[in-house]
Amino acid sequence: MDEVKVIELKKSVFEANDRNADNLRTELKQRGVYLLNLMSAPGSGKTTTLIQTINRLKDKIRIAVMEADIDSDVDAIKIKEATGVESIQLHTGGMCHLDAEMTRQGLAGIQDSKIQKFKDEPYDLVILENVGNLVCPAEFDTGAVRNAMILSVPEGHDKPLKYPLMFTVCDVVVINKIDVLPYFDFDLEKCKEYIHMRNPKAIVIPVCAKTGEGIDQFAEWLLTEVKKWKK
Amino acid sequence: MDEVKVIELKKSVFEANDRNADNLRTELKQRGVYLLNLMSAPGSGKTTTLIQTINRLKDKIRIAVMEADIDSDVDAIKIKEATGVESIQLHTGGMCHLDAEMTRQGLAGIQDSKIQKFKDEPYDLVILENVGNLVCPAEFDTGAVRNAMILSVPEGHDKPLKYPLMFTVCDVVVINKIDVLPYFDFDLEKCKEYIHMRNPKAIVIPVCAKTGEGIDQFAEWLLTEVKKWKK
Repeated sequence: MDEVKVIELKKSVFEANDRNADNLRTELKQRGVYLLNLMSAPGSGKTTTLIQTINRLKDKIRIAVMEADIDSDVDAIKIKEATGVESIQLHTGGMCHLDAEMTRQGLAGIQDSKIQKFKDEPYDLVILENVGNLVCPAEFDTGAVRNAMILSVPEGHDKPLKYPLMFTVCDVVVINKIDVLPYFDFDLEKCKEYIHMRNPKAIVIPVCAKTGEGIDQFAEWLLTEVKKWKK
Repeated sequence: MDEVKVIELKKSVFEANDRNADNLRTELKQRGVYLLNLMSAPGSGKTTTLIQTINRLKDKIRIAVMEADIDSDVDAIKIKEATGVESIQLHTGGMCHLDAEMTRQGLAGIQDSKIQKFKDEPYDLVILENVGNLVCPAEFDTGAVRNAMILSVPEGHDKPLKYPLMFTVCDVVVINKIDVLPYFDFDLEKCKEYIHMRNPKAIVIPVCAKTGEGIDQFAEWLLTEVKKWKK
């Protein structure tokens, strides 16, 4: 068989982004701002999970949310109406992921906001709700302190096998919609086993965002993280 | 209903890429190299169509191919074995599209190749086979002179409605696998109508890459384009 030349393109693209992301993380550390990057497939319940989580934390820490979507601003409005926290919408205009530069533009947007000056009195926690996609967002470091993802029961317990990188880069995996476990062929123990094959240290938190079950544990993890970051 | 701030991220990202792409096109014009960007969904027959096309043109003009894939090099090897033309593989490492910078890296890879020096004796035609995806590749100008795409009959005639940008940016739409038209609910006239809604100037070429039917027309279009570009 013939041999062909193979060029690995990703290296330079990702190296440049990794540098941007590291710089952003350093700036956030200096300002005492904790950035969480929340990822998932479309429809797994990111927004509902966020609303439940924010309502448990908003009296303890200052929170802002950046909702990234290809288009529309329904999620940002929903978060603002349901929690009252500052929420802005980032339009990717067709792009399937956010990189560190785009995240920086979002943070600058919060900073410019009339509601609160990011520079003068920074938020303790900014949550970035990434584009619904299990592939590309995992490739790009956004500059967040931690990555978290939501896997919902109807998506199936085999997802860590099919989307290895997403599960490798996430520190926390929230398993949502556990109320419908009886109606789906979803093996929670097998799912945890597959997740830990990808990332042995991953924290797995089963929740039902609709009823709030399990959200206390996720909120508690997040609060501890924010406090550690500000030290 | 609350109003939220909306930030359009795409503008700066795409503006930077558009500048890179324009610069690359200018350089290619100076060297007399015609770059074609070929896009499609996965499995529509890009590689087979290319082999048929290249075999009709390789004795008339100097051709090289860049095969972009998330991983693997089967397509580049297949092109090289079936046509004998210079063929290199570009690995995007998980990324769903190519931008102008990545395309430039690919062209530099051809240039460095032991087989032929791009600088000293440039190719007349370089074909970039983009990542199989109807969304993201349409967003990024690669620096190509023209965009072409392949839509295969089993995908359905409604694709121009669902992926508007892809059909808007393509100068040529090759409709592949017309041998299976009798077995699918695919309306060729309706498909042309939808394509022209997106891009009234688009040239539509029905082909069967397996048998070679219709490929002459596509090869002829491409040869005329290359000759015009070199003037």
